[in-house]
Amino acid sequence: MGTKPYKRWQGRLHEIIYEADTPAGKLFDVVLLIVIIASILLVMLESVKSIDAQYHMFLNISEWIITILFTIEYILRIVTVKKPLKYITSFYGIIDLLSTLPKYLSLIFAGTHALVALRALRLLRVFRILKLARFMGASNHLAAAIKSSRAKISVFLFAVVIVATIFGTIMYLVEGEASGFNNIPRSIYWSIVTLTTVGYGDIAPVTPLGQFIASFIMVLGYGIIAVPTGIVSAEYTRKMNKDDAKSATVPNALPPHPSEVDLNSLSCSNCLAQDHKDNAKFCHKCGHSLELQPTK
Amino acid sequence: MGTKPYKRWQGRLHEIIYEADTPAGKLFDVVLLIVIIASILLVMLESVKSIDAQYHMFLNISEWIITILFTIEYILRIVTVKKPLKYITSFYGIIDLLSTLPKYLSLIFAGTHALVALRALRLLRVFRILKLARFMGASNHLAAAIKSSRAKISVFLFAVVIVATIFGTIMYLVEGEASGFNNIPRSIYWSIVTLTTVGYGDIAPVTPLGQFIASFIMVLGYGIIAVPTGIVSAEYTRKMNKDDAKSATVPNALPPHPSEVDLNSLSCSNCLAQDHKDNAKFCHKCGHSLELQPTK
Amino acid sequence: MGTKPYKRWQGRLHEIIYEADTPAGKLFDVVLLIVIIASILLVMLESVKSIDAQYHMFLNISEWIITILFTIEYILRIVTVKKPLKYITSFYGIIDLLSTLPKYLSLIFAGTHALVALRALRLLRVFRILKLARFMGASNHLAAAIKSSRAKISVFLFAVVIVATIFGTIMYLVEGEASGFNNIPRSIYWSIVTLTTVGYGDIAPVTPLGQFIASFIMVLGYGIIAVPTGIVSAEYTRKMNKDDAKSATVPNALPPHPSEVDLNSLSCSNCLAQDHKDNAKFCHKCGHSLELQPTK
Amino acid sequence: MGTKPYKRWQGRLHEIIYEADTPAGKLFDVVLLIVIIASILLVMLESVKSIDAQYHMFLNISEWIITILFTIEYILRIVTVKKPLKYITSFYGIIDLLSTLPKYLSLIFAGTHALVALRALRLLRVFRILKLARFMGASNHLAAAIKSSRAKISVFLFAVVIVATIFGTIMYLVEGEASGFNNIPRSIYWSIVTLTTVGYGDIAPVTPLGQFIASFIMVLGYGIIAVPTGIVSAEYTRKMNKDDAKSATVPNALPPHPSEVDLNSLSCSNCLAQDHKDNAKFCHKCGHSLELQPTK
Repeated sequence: MGTKPYKRWQGRLHEIIYEADTPAGKLFDVVLLIVIIASILLVMLESVKSIDAQYHMFLNISEWIITILFTIEYILRIVTVKKPLKYITSFYGIIDLLSTLPKYLSLIFAGTHALVALRALRLLRVFRILKLARFMGASNHLAAAIKSSRAKISVFLFAVVIVATIFGTIMYLVEGEASGFNNIPRSIYWSIVTLTTVGYGDIAPVTPLGQFIASFIMVLGYGIIAVPTGIVSAEYTRKMNKDDAKSATVPNALPPHPSEVDLNSLSCSNCLAQDHKDNAKFCHKCGHSLELQPTK
Repeated sequence: MGTKPYKRWQGRLHEIIYEADTPAGKLFDVVLLIVIIASILLVMLESVKSIDAQYHMFLNISEWIITILFTIEYILRIVTVKKPLKYITSFYGIIDLLSTLPKYLSLIFAGTHALVALRALRLLRVFRILKLARFMGASNHLAAAIKSSRAKISVFLFAVVIVATIFGTIMYLVEGEASGFNNIPRSIYWSIVTLTTVGYGDIAPVTPLGQFIASFIMVLGYGIIAVPTGIVSAEYTRKMNKDDAKSATVPNALPPHPSEVDLNSLSCSNCLAQDHKDNAKFCHKCGHSLELQPTK
Repeated sequence: MGTKPYKRWQGRLHEIIYEADTPAGKLFDVVLLIVIIASILLVMLESVKSIDAQYHMFLNISEWIITILFTIEYILRIVTVKKPLKYITSFYGIIDLLSTLPKYLSLIFAGTHALVALRALRLLRVFRILKLARFMGASNHLAAAIKSSRAKISVFLFAVVIVATIFGTIMYLVEGEASGFNNIPRSIYWSIVTLTTVGYGDIAPVTPLGQFIASFIMVLGYGIIAVPTGIVSAEYTRKMNKDDAKSATVPNALPPHPSEVDLNSLSCSNCLAQDHKDNAKFCHKCGHSLELQPTK
Repeated sequence: MGTKPYKRWQGRLHEIIYEADTPAGKLFDVVLLIVIIASILLVMLESVKSIDAQYHMFLNISEWIITILFTIEYILRIVTVKKPLKYITSFYGIIDLLSTLPKYLSLIFAGTHALVALRALRLLRVFRILKLARFMGASNHLAAAIKSSRAKISVFLFAVVIVATIFGTIMYLVEGEASGFNNIPRSIYWSIVTLTTVGYGDIAPVTPLGQFIASFIMVLGYGIIAVPTGIVSAEYTRKMNKDDAKSATVPNALPPHPSEVDLNSLSCSNCLAQDHKDNAKFCHKCGHSLELQPTK
């Protein structure tokens, strides 16, 4: 009975912090996004020597304000979730902690201050806040195409790494230290720089044989860059074709394919699971109610 | 009654300057294009020290001639349009002003002369003059494909910027100033140089850990370069398939799809709106007559 | 009557030199290809200082032998064609002349010797000799796809050049000479190096604003690299789909589409026109007989 | 009769070493993969001067252990195969020999030690062990697409090499030695670096004409990079479309297409042929039984 009123504001806060579909939740997300961007700009400016020298005090105070805001947000996120440990050990939970800790640690240990820059990782939250997938078209064809090509592209990139290892080793034997191919890891790094057509030029072959093998690697890289691109465009074309075919041949409207159902931005207050359907009333994972806790 | 004869030459000039389908309009556009290219070549040559030293007088006089020509054109564009303010504040209006102003300002302030180079922006007018889209095939499939992929590619590029920010920050922490990663903005610049596979090599990681993370970024960039390409080719394939299907299944000729209707190069003398259908008689936006003002 | 026996060997030689479908013609082409590659290897080796110093005599004599062989071939090509002027002024005619002339000129003028390297242009003949298109699959889908995308890609590349000009000019104003952006042509060169993701790093922005604009150009280049790729793959997919559809729906074998008819390697002895159908008896352009001149 | 029991353990070992579908065979493959990766890490670490200086003894002993393990594996592979010469002269046989020999040779000749790095080639065995193709999706569309585009892409890359040769030669004439274009092979190397958009910047044009030609090469390379990508994505789209069409139009399940039949990882103990169907009892190449040798 004593926990009821406590749960009430908890549920209300959970809605504001974790959801994005209510006006209050939307406002919270927009404010959070602005504070994150401001904090990153601060860290950026501070890393520039000439600016830091002039505005050190202002930057330092601003950073403390933002750190305290982030700390409050972090604590609120913990108290409004039913299973705080799950949040704390989640991907975003760790990032949120990493965003605040270094500033406090800098009071005790000098040098840890630079780690404040890890705050940039909070930008990843943008993907969730903006629900970027929605911007990409009414249906999630692209997301589906990327998802179904992910496995193939991963295997492909794995193959690229193996090829880079073999060519890196060969180039280490051929070029040797004089050309900057000091050791095998460095040669593999060069191989990857070349295969991906980045080509810094910090290390480059100088012997005729090395340049010949390098040319071969480049032409090879030119040929295989075609593969991941081919995969994505083929998968994407297929998803769209299927959709076009469906809407063309079926006269009466069918229920949308699951992958195209609009998902809401809710996360379960019990298990933090996401991707609930827009009209879902219970968590699809743990069965906990997704509704605002009714207050008796 | 006193404005009628005035409007007559105004309408005639409007036709010459703003349209490209009449012989006079075509001639005007071709001459304008040649003068623009000549003016850019002049600016280019002037920027080369050795050439400027030798032909300074010739280049300066030629530039004054072109500046005066552009000024006349600018004034004529204002007087022949019904709503001059709309033209002056339009994209091309500002560019046209920027093309002439710096030369005059150079009489008063030294140093502003270099801004004459902004004249290169006038090249953008080429797209309108040549109606380049027409060259790209009878139908505007490609333009339609680019238009419908634009949103997706923008979101994608936005994601690339976020990824670049995060990796830039991490590399700043890992590499530090010794390797040229002086501050976070510079590290982000390096990240973008790497992710886009440009790879200048002006900044490059030197520590083993930095090179390892850089390799990871490169392989990642290699994988994600596939996405925008996949989007464009899939969208373009789809547009063409639809067209092929239509012409294959429908026995009698249908009226062409709006996106494929040949648009003329007219712009309304009242509101400057463009993209009128070839046989349009009235502006689709403000309803003003597109015909040459009849004179009674 | 006196010209008949003359024409006979002329016709025979024309068959050997210009055709590739008879055993003698094939042999001639293979020998020619080997001699061309040998001549290019010689020029390459000669350009390497250390090798030239040691084997100068051998390289020089070999080059004279090849030059004389090429000269004989050039003369034979002239005498066996009915309209020698047409051959001499044709693309391959000029290349064939450029392959022999510099060596003779080197007897008179010192320094022209290096121009022997122009012989590399003869490699282009490989495309005709090997009829490379044939290797690319039974049907000429790829060639057709490239042909139908050529116009679009050209316009696209033209747009890239305009964008490069504008950004090059802006970067010239922003960066100035200190960073290597000496003049506008050089800045445009840098723009193209960046937009095409080549990224030498010989010129690179150093000011924060310049790096910011450069980042923008890179991300833009990353986005627009998708367009030509999309065009080719869409066109190619379409050509193949059409073919698949045709073979799938039509039960009895249809005569092949003109673009897929096997063309022979003959060129008309009268007007040098090529791309005759395999069983063609008369030139499709001038109506001259393609058969070996009958001897009465 | 005396060879029967000998053959029995031979057959058993063959199963363990050459197959991957039995528990023992799987275990052997996983252990082998771990040892290969460990051996490559050792070689890598040894190539880093600072690490080698500190842990030389440990690295050397570990390498000897792995070399002996590889030697035992190599001998076992020979004795369990019916035609040892076929294995020894096979691609993997040569790589397996190259993985062990240099270490032994280093006892006799100093300097051959570095060749131990050739062991990296053993990574290629990963493709066979992991049967990577399986990861790439239930059906082998991608593999089929790569296979059917291979010929086209090879011809395309061959064309790139010819274009690189021609432009390399031209740039040698235009730029000369001052800019690093010392000789033609080096200029061709630069051409390939540029055409493939790698762009090291170790050699870069400095004359205005050279930069102009380089710009042209870059824009060209930008345009032609589209071709191999287009080929792969078109072929892949087509394979998937065919499959979709088949499953869509045919009501009752058809026997799977041969290219999609699950192949097992067996290799014939007689002729080493691979790619047997999963339920195959006899080698499809030599007719030898694939079953474990029955013992009477």
